[in-house]
Amino acid sequence: MFLRAAGRKKRLGTDRLSEFDLLRRLQGRVRRFSGGLQTGIGDDCAVISCGPDQDLLVTTDLLAEGVHFDRCWFSLPQIGAKGLRVSLSDIAAMGGTPEYAFISLALPPSTPPGEGERILEGICQTAETYQVTIAGGDLSRSEKGIVLDVILLGKAEKGKALLRSGAQPGDQLFVSGTLGDAALGLQLLKTGKGGDDRAFPVVRQRRPEPRLELGRELLKGGWATAMIDLSDGISSDLAHLCEASGVGAFLCFDDLPCSTSFQETCAALAWEPAPFVLQGGEDYELLFTVPAGVRSALERAALPVPVTRIGEILPAGAGVWLEDPKGGRQPLSPQGYDHFR
Amino acid sequence: MFLRAAGRKKRLGTDRLSEFDLLRRLQGRVRRFSGGLQTGIGDDCAVISCGPDQDLLVTTDLLAEGVHFDRCWFSLPQIGAKGLRVSLSDIAAMGGTPEYAFISLALPPSTPPGEGERILEGICQTAETYQVTIAGGDLSRSEKGIVLDVILLGKAEKGKALLRSGAQPGDQLFVSGTLGDAALGLQLLKTGKGGDDRAFPVVRQRRPEPRLELGRELLKGGWATAMIDLSDGISSDLAHLCEASGVGAFLCFDDLPCSTSFQETCAALAWEPAPFVLQGGEDYELLFTVPAGVRSALERAALPVPVTRIGEILPAGAGVWLEDPKGGRQPLSPQGYDHFR
Repeated sequence: MFLRAAGRKKRLGTDRLSEFDLLRRLQGRVRRFSGGLQTGIGDDCAVISCGPDQDLLVTTDLLAEGVHFDRCWFSLPQIGAKGLRVSLSDIAAMGGTPEYAFISLALPPSTPPGEGERILEGICQTAETYQVTIAGGDLSRSEKGIVLDVILLGKAEKGKALLRSGAQPGDQLFVSGTLGDAALGLQLLKTGKGGDDRAFPVVRQRRPEPRLELGRELLKGGWATAMIDLSDGISSDLAHLCEASGVGAFLCFDDLPCSTSFQETCAALAWEPAPFVLQGGEDYELLFTVPAGVRSALERAALPVPVTRIGEILPAGAGVWLEDPKGGRQPLSPQGYDHFR
Repeated sequence: MFLRAAGRKKRLGTDRLSEFDLLRRLQGRVRRFSGGLQTGIGDDCAVISCGPDQDLLVTTDLLAEGVHFDRCWFSLPQIGAKGLRVSLSDIAAMGGTPEYAFISLALPPSTPPGEGERILEGICQTAETYQVTIAGGDLSRSEKGIVLDVILLGKAEKGKALLRSGAQPGDQLFVSGTLGDAALGLQLLKTGKGGDDRAFPVVRQRRPEPRLELGRELLKGGWATAMIDLSDGISSDLAHLCEASGVGAFLCFDDLPCSTSFQETCAALAWEPAPFVLQGGEDYELLFTVPAGVRSALERAALPVPVTRIGEILPAGAGVWLEDPKGGRQPLSPQGYDHFR
């Protein structure tokens, strides 16, 4: 969705107009003709009034071959499945429940028969896993490469969807699961060092887990004040959350959760873990804030995915900082992926 | 939207698996997890229950450079505008009112700065014309060529959306506006015979008019039993309507409405008009059926766009026919555009 817009790996081109600049201009330009739009451009989903008890959530994520995925590392069903999973993560980031998917799929002229069907099969299987109904879409040709745009409609309790904009100074910053795996997995695939297809980082790259259940728990329990999913890398996505909330933050580097597999692989290959963790992207974990007073209750709560306290929200203008193990601080600049740079 | 899927001009590739075959398989494959879906894959829009008085309409239309448009004939704002207009036509085809647009836009690596903004400017201006709120989307890179996917959410009175599936034997077949202009316009642009950029067929190619007001009138007045918009050419789109309704039909060739500009241009260039009219596509007019008893009332009604009676619905199994001026009939085979053939 817009302003999370970028997302996913692989740099291409070096254009001078940033995607985020473009979005900011668009945000300023757009006129609202309907009173039903609660949240528009600039969050993981749009939030639209729909009936007395519910809000409608809408998100769209476009994946292009050669930009977001490479057919060397993904089977056709995996491409379809990933397209849907990435959109599901946007619904998770609002604390919502996905309901309907619309699939726009463009295939290059050279596509052999059956390939489109295999992509759709990956989507259908994933839709069944998450009980999403495929309700429409558009099948077409592209000039080159597969283009898959997955649109998801979901729902959330009226007025309760978790936005990026609710973080307050003093709120504690939490993240679900572990960071850096998917980026490491991509690097393993690219360098041919992955070895086993079932290696945890490779699975995390190919098959992100949308944290839907956790998102709903955080909404239902009234825990979170703000939430975003990690698509571009925590350094970028934290910057987005801080910008939307008008706050600063610090991250404790040593508290950032990493999987054993991640640590062992980095150690074995003598790869620096920090870039994967901070700027890697495609974690599709939830980054969220809770009031300081509920921190310990949250840490004791039975949640569907482990969550870790990784920092704190600072007042407006305080900036975004990375706290190193010795207690020093350095500015954390967003270095996730922007397609247009 | 799916099963209208194809749409728009220019043939590429010669794949053996038809887009429609693929859609039929998908239709059979998809599981429904929600009771809210009134109409899914196979109409111009999906229809979803949303509150006590309204249904939500959802449609998505993907345009790819080199497939649906050529930058030789379209400025960047015109590409953006056409993308939105084509989706608006799907909402018109249900008798609905458009409300929210989501824009997925992928630009090739070589895109100079400002080009994305010009496409978005075309979309914004069109959105203002039709009072549509742009509520989100995704900006990204493509491997090659501009890819624009426009998702529209609209509304219709509960249970009243005009589907493709309601036509009954004996119903009279009507079409709005004139046929063949847009296809002729494209041919003029391609052959360099267009002369004036303001030539009516060229304007119709670049700037289709979604028949929203007419669609709403037909719904409100309870006139129509079935409706579809003409994207692929009347021979294809009539076949879709007949298939969805489980009926046959005949078209009176001499009654098909053509503009003076169309007739004069074809005559001046000695171009055969029939292929443009029957298989041309991109008319974005409404093709609809009304019970025989209301035909004359409809013909006298004050409507926002002229409508013309062009044929009649036949019983199931009777086939789809073209009636020539001498009263003879020949089978009308769908020859509109299928991207996958």
